[in-house]
Amino acid sequence: MAELGEFRLIARITSGRRLPVATLLGPGDDAAVLVAADGRVVVSTDVLVEGVHFRLDWSTPHQVGRKAVAANLADVVAMGAVPTALVVGLAVPGRTPVSTVDGLAAGMWEEAEQAGAGIVGGDVVSCAELVVSVTALGDLRGRPPVTRSGARPGDVLGLCGRLGWAAAGLAVLRRGFRSPPAVVGAHRVPEPPYGAGTRAAAAGATAMIDVSDGLLADAGHLAEASGVGIDIDSAAVPVAATVAEVASALGADALHWVLTGGDDHALLACFPAGVALPAGWTELGVVRQGRGVTVDGDAYDVFPAGWEHFA
Amino acid sequence: MAELGEFRLIARITSGRRLPVATLLGPGDDAAVLVAADGRVVVSTDVLVEGVHFRLDWSTPHQVGRKAVAANLADVVAMGAVPTALVVGLAVPGRTPVSTVDGLAAGMWEEAEQAGAGIVGGDVVSCAELVVSVTALGDLRGRPPVTRSGARPGDVLGLCGRLGWAAAGLAVLRRGFRSPPAVVGAHRVPEPPYGAGTRAAAAGATAMIDVSDGLLADAGHLAEASGVGIDIDSAAVPVAATVAEVASALGADALHWVLTGGDDHALLACFPAGVALPAGWTELGVVRQGRGVTVDGDAYDVFPAGWEHFA
Repeated sequence: MAELGEFRLIARITSGRRLPVATLLGPGDDAAVLVAADGRVVVSTDVLVEGVHFRLDWSTPHQVGRKAVAANLADVVAMGAVPTALVVGLAVPGRTPVSTVDGLAAGMWEEAEQAGAGIVGGDVVSCAELVVSVTALGDLRGRPPVTRSGARPGDVLGLCGRLGWAAAGLAVLRRGFRSPPAVVGAHRVPEPPYGAGTRAAAAGATAMIDVSDGLLADAGHLAEASGVGIDIDSAAVPVAATVAEVASALGADALHWVLTGGDDHALLACFPAGVALPAGWTELGVVRQGRGVTVDGDAYDVFPAGWEHFA
Repeated sequence: MAELGEFRLIARITSGRRLPVATLLGPGDDAAVLVAADGRVVVSTDVLVEGVHFRLDWSTPHQVGRKAVAANLADVVAMGAVPTALVVGLAVPGRTPVSTVDGLAAGMWEEAEQAGAGIVGGDVVSCAELVVSVTALGDLRGRPPVTRSGARPGDVLGLCGRLGWAAAGLAVLRRGFRSPPAVVGAHRVPEPPYGAGTRAAAAGATAMIDVSDGLLADAGHLAEASGVGIDIDSAAVPVAATVAEVASALGADALHWVLTGGDDHALLACFPAGVALPAGWTELGVVRQGRGVTVDGDAYDVFPAGWEHFA
């Protein structure tokens, strides 16, 4: 890193790639310029820190790059928007091999392209820690944003995407194992259902959030913002066979991982009663009057219900 | 910090403030939504690291917050755009007093409001180092962006804003002094000429950049991107009396600070010959055929000509 210098590093991250279609002016200037087709732009930012959000002995730089972008894009998708572009900031120790930054950049590009976006700018600075900062922009395609606050009593709670997989993978890695690859891979690189957000918005979703902190925690964020209660039907909660097997092998509770594990970036949305849920979405519970989140009508009272920094 | 928790911290940074006029959906959801009035959005990102970009024994958190935002907004202004909004990421050691984050946030808000913008979202995570990541958005008001690449031989090089002040302040601080306050303050909080970018764009500027790396370095970026040479008239380079006095007292070369010192975030732009420079802009040199930057026709060959990370 110290040998290559800042400007050549930024060029390595941003040049020679196919820029997203929304790009009017790409990397290399003071700022980028993007199309905001309907006169609005969605924006969200995330920061990931080595040793807190990822470990380079558990994940390759390429996987870390994918995860950083996926987590951020999931926020844009959870508004009902289509991701258009990202800018990234990297704070990198001078001793870091250039291959690490190349791997991060390649992973960020791969994930961005899966969602139809790309990287249009960035900043690279020296730092004792490796910190990845990602900001994503998105396009609402003329629809209102789907906020956290629109859920109404009587709505159906729907889910699209995986739950508990990343938690299972983390539990495996913490015990020093590297398999089964499916759950370890889920911890390393989440798979947000990128197309599902716009499908939910088009179907009339009243509220939406991505599950980054855990199902109960993020359902709680929806409930609080909407001023409603949410009841989850435990029989409808998808416990994948692979997750159940890992839990069994490790003496853990698979349902607990599914209810409280974060980092899978599934989407959780509320739909008016009677609306046919879009492809890929399944019913998970109901919105009711009141407050808080219950499971089969009762409080689910196992700490921790989700991850909070500094807590 | 560790006592307050992530969610309450984000609320402290973003709540209870007057959101920028472009805000359609402010903090508290998965993403913010902003007006992009002319169907385009300008975006730029910067990362600042404690010990690299700022020192909390030299600057208050409030000053660091202002500097982080000013540096980023200057990039947006240098495109000829009006800043509309920012999102910020903070990576903060758990031992950090909450007052430090409050100071950073207050400084960021103060600077953003000076430019007519505000903070619409953020992320706060734990980290061994204090890292401030800022992404600014801007509105071109229907005009084309003023890039670095449009300068043509015969254009006039213009300057708006201060040069050498931050370098003088840094030299003072490095020697353990705290005065004169004017230059120390310039190091702590730059004063980008926020209104000057749109005035230059409206006057027909062909190329523009903000001086973050130093006059010669950033004129070099303009020259390289435009495929031209730039000659600076040393007699036109503004050496402020205060800067000259500090240089004299410290046995330093004031002109060298003005030519190579970064972090003042003045604006440098090229205008077609015969165009009356807008208010606040002064002529500094000419664009010529060729390549590179000269001073009075000669190479200015004193290292370093600008700051580069990892160099």
